[in-house]
Amino acid sequence: MLRTHTCGELRISDVNKQVTLTGWVQRTRDKGSLLWIDLRDRYGVTQLFLEEGKSETSLINTARTLGREFVVKVEGLVAERHSKNMNIPTGEIEIKVSLLEILNSSKTPPFTIEDETDGGEDLRMKYRYLDLRRNPVRESLQLRHKMAQQTRVYLDSLNFIEVETPILIKSTPEGARDFVVPSRMNPGEFYALPQSPQTFKQLLMVSGFDRYYQIVKCFRDEDLRADRQPEFTQIDCEMSFVTQEDILKTFEGLVRHLFKAVKGIELKDVPHMSYADAMKYYGSDKPDTRFEMKFADLNDVAQGKGFGVFDDAQLVVGICAKGCATYTRKQIDELTEFVKRPQVGAKGLVYLRCEANGTFKSSIDKFFDEIELSKFAQKFNAEAGDLILILAGEKDKTRKALSELRLHVAGQLGLRDKSKFAALWVLDFPLFEWDEETKRWNAMHHPFTSPKREDIAILDTDPGNVRANAYDMVLNGTEIGGGSIRIHDRTTQQLMFSKLGFSDEEARKQFGFLMEAFEFGAPPHGGIAFGFDRLCSLFSGADSIRDFIAFPKNNAGRDTMIDTPSTISQAQLNELGIEVKKK
Amino acid sequence: MLRTHTCGELRISDVNKQVTLTGWVQRTRDKGSLLWIDLRDRYGVTQLFLEEGKSETSLINTARTLGREFVVKVEGLVAERHSKNMNIPTGEIEIKVSLLEILNSSKTPPFTIEDETDGGEDLRMKYRYLDLRRNPVRESLQLRHKMAQQTRVYLDSLNFIEVETPILIKSTPEGARDFVVPSRMNPGEFYALPQSPQTFKQLLMVSGFDRYYQIVKCFRDEDLRADRQPEFTQIDCEMSFVTQEDILKTFEGLVRHLFKAVKGIELKDVPHMSYADAMKYYGSDKPDTRFEMKFADLNDVAQGKGFGVFDDAQLVVGICAKGCATYTRKQIDELTEFVKRPQVGAKGLVYLRCEANGTFKSSIDKFFDEIELSKFAQKFNAEAGDLILILAGEKDKTRKALSELRLHVAGQLGLRDKSKFAALWVLDFPLFEWDEETKRWNAMHHPFTSPKREDIAILDTDPGNVRANAYDMVLNGTEIGGGSIRIHDRTTQQLMFSKLGFSDEEARKQFGFLMEAFEFGAPPHGGIAFGFDRLCSLFSGADSIRDFIAFPKNNAGRDTMIDTPSTISQAQLNELGIEVKKK
Repeated sequence: MLRTHTCGELRISDVNKQVTLTGWVQRTRDKGSLLWIDLRDRYGVTQLFLEEGKSETSLINTARTLGREFVVKVEGLVAERHSKNMNIPTGEIEIKVSLLEILNSSKTPPFTIEDETDGGEDLRMKYRYLDLRRNPVRESLQLRHKMAQQTRVYLDSLNFIEVETPILIKSTPEGARDFVVPSRMNPGEFYALPQSPQTFKQLLMVSGFDRYYQIVKCFRDEDLRADRQPEFTQIDCEMSFVTQEDILKTFEGLVRHLFKAVKGIELKDVPHMSYADAMKYYGSDKPDTRFEMKFADLNDVAQGKGFGVFDDAQLVVGICAKGCATYTRKQIDELTEFVKRPQVGAKGLVYLRCEANGTFKSSIDKFFDEIELSKFAQKFNAEAGDLILILAGEKDKTRKALSELRLHVAGQLGLRDKSKFAALWVLDFPLFEWDEETKRWNAMHHPFTSPKREDIAILDTDPGNVRANAYDMVLNGTEIGGGSIRIHDRTTQQLMFSKLGFSDEEARKQFGFLMEAFEFGAPPHGGIAFGFDRLCSLFSGADSIRDFIAFPKNNAGRDTMIDTPSTISQAQLNELGIEVKKK
Repeated sequence: MLRTHTCGELRISDVNKQVTLTGWVQRTRDKGSLLWIDLRDRYGVTQLFLEEGKSETSLINTARTLGREFVVKVEGLVAERHSKNMNIPTGEIEIKVSLLEILNSSKTPPFTIEDETDGGEDLRMKYRYLDLRRNPVRESLQLRHKMAQQTRVYLDSLNFIEVETPILIKSTPEGARDFVVPSRMNPGEFYALPQSPQTFKQLLMVSGFDRYYQIVKCFRDEDLRADRQPEFTQIDCEMSFVTQEDILKTFEGLVRHLFKAVKGIELKDVPHMSYADAMKYYGSDKPDTRFEMKFADLNDVAQGKGFGVFDDAQLVVGICAKGCATYTRKQIDELTEFVKRPQVGAKGLVYLRCEANGTFKSSIDKFFDEIELSKFAQKFNAEAGDLILILAGEKDKTRKALSELRLHVAGQLGLRDKSKFAALWVLDFPLFEWDEETKRWNAMHHPFTSPKREDIAILDTDPGNVRANAYDMVLNGTEIGGGSIRIHDRTTQQLMFSKLGFSDEEARKQFGFLMEAFEFGAPPHGGIAFGFDRLCSLFSGADSIRDFIAFPKNNAGRDTMIDTPSTISQAQLNELGIEVKKK
């Protein structure tokens, strides 16, 4: 090694050692006869010291040529500092430099390499290799490494085998759009990149692998919203001979292990909640349970009193914001504006203040007397000082809007504390969801999810109410993982495809291999996949997943650093037997 | 879990326990009133036992319907066997079955699920999920898992961070052919799949990550020879502030750790050999050093005696096959045929038998007397009973042919024992190799490899003799890994591109980001990549890498199980803005 120690390593006990360090110049302070340099590497920062008169002149002169981010090698003696910096582990010592070699120079970086940088998103992405030098970004990727390590420790300990599944697979139109790869050796034919290793992991169960996992890249060619990436990483898992309860227990264990090993946090037990309850009490299949603020249905107390908005509504539903009776008119107007935004979609907001004296102040005083309003308050066990917020309208839309309002108010109240963690299993998802556009039933999870045995009878008559053996894990209001007990026999799988509108021929062409595999002794099996990028960002309390991906793409799917995608040569196109269409 | 124990778990100490097992029916033996079933899962095989009169009739009847590979769940009592099988860990016990449930039936598999199967390669690939049930294949993938685990254990312990680099990157015509991915959001533009994460890992060094690794999928669209796969896995590593010696030490350590942890073998020290010596003494840059049989140059004793074949040759060179003087005429003819095969390319073979009585029997007796022949023998320290084999001709071709002969003879002599392991570092590779077809110099490793400092002076005048800071690790005659100390400054990198025939514009377009990165404080760095599939197969003593890949492709790049590549819909092509060319 060009160094004897890293820049994060030396302590007061190393004083008088002769050492060699390498690293980047973080900053220099030149006080005339005294010169300090902060030398940085991945492991820390160590202070270098030179003194006119004591250090050789040529050394001082070289030191004065150093710019930010120069790469240097220094030799010197470890000495105790006069003025110590107890905020950093190396803060008690400095190096009296006797030799200084510039290993590489640096142009002035386009933004400062500091925790808080002056660089904007675009600039940081173009010079990602400089952005990655900043502590917060490097620490994000170190956290990711640790998360992956600990995931493997846990799953290995339970006899899971990591198996690599192929990246060049087959395109299946079901679900999201595939990225495809033209095959040169098979002109006119294409591979596809996997949206997940779903069918392969199921085949591994058919093979008797019993317990499989993989930390694996997956690909979706979707229009990118903020924080969606065309390539993303999953912790992908599958188990044989299990009940749903076994899977919940095993992967609740994984998340608890990660919290303990990576953050030193004992996660509370992970409660179970049905999809139906999640929708009823939180208006969302991924409720944020760091705080309560549950919905209460108000139809029985709200309807029949002559207030048309309530009387005409399929659902009148509200939340109680504890201690918010002090909200001003302006604040309530702001909430009304919030719910009326097109993304939220409510028509208006009714409020009910529980005053200190036990009376109520409400926007619907005209229609409801004090006794009637007190019945509203009872639904929430509301107390003096609370503020009740009510929406009314079509059931699903109103719930969704109230869910948005709930999160918005909780945010205002500081209830969405990123250092707090609340996990939840949401169970018993519907098997199908209706697609208004194509007028057909889609699989809510995917076509390999098994229906609950007791609901198979209503598959034909009432598909919307068939529940699946499917489960999501939710952390702080974000879905971090989801899975299901799978279908493992050909008959049920065929039935499922036919319900989803596949012709026999389509089903056979796309998934014939899987249905055939089910005829050769497929065991009962199920699994789960966690979104690894998101999981890392949640652990870190970050809003964006970008800093947990070393080289992310922007919202147009571009890597601006290497400038891709880009055109390829006509020779390449010819070899592949494809043409770019003229616009 | 549907089971209380696995099929590999129960021992004599478990006798009288009530247990539930699940698994596959390996075989049934029906002796009239007695019925045995071998139940298999990933963990082992357990014998089930039923007896007419003692077991319920319905149970016996169900058991008699079981076919091979049926999936069942059984409950019963652990009992000591009458006739024990000490070859398997569960061989002392059997289960007296009290309940038998068929979880899934199985059609008769197209080949037997046994260690030695009757299925051919094509059939096994089409039904890979059944092939994976066979012990040798499953064990290969378990070995792979353990290799990956232990690779991570070792590198983690040395502060390496695993960082995922992108799969959707930029196409660069240099090197092998890229797989490309049309971008729907950027019509007419393409991503490429990485042939290796080379530039990204170098950027991570520029970022100060200091020590990086990744077990990562790479892709090459080459015409597939036996045992090449379009997607393959590398252990990819890079370090900053290192000398070549540091890298050799670190990764020799990795391989020694793997041998110790995975196979319990203490690997001998890994010797260093220059590329020049490897070519001189073995005619190969990846010599098999499990055995000696070094080349000896014979020009000085062979030439000038009137034997035209030797006199006209650039090189006369031979090997000594210990104890092979007993080879018959027929055996020597077979060796002559071997070297004359077009793949080997020699014109003929000269032999020299060292007879027991100290005389020589040779095919060139006419031109050389006993004293002259004894000088040949001295070159090898040959003893009575040895057989010397000699080729002559153009230097490089003759060495290559003799290398093939050496391996062939060693194979005949049983010197290529797959349970023995000899590793080797080959160093000081040439920086360039001449491409006869394009009449230009190519990078022997890749364009990021640094030249040896002392050879930079001859870059212009004698490029063929410039040595690189490049190294390969060779195990049993196979290259398992290779790397180099990289260029880390823009000037040298630009010079290198220009020597390789890149215009400034081409270099900038393809690798501008890297050269720019080198201007912002790039540290000295170097690295290595190991071929993981091959490494696993060598550890296992296997000839093929196929069984170390869960779902491999055939030589036409096809996965016959899922039937890919395949056509995609016109709608997909339209969305991507590409057309398939008509033939």
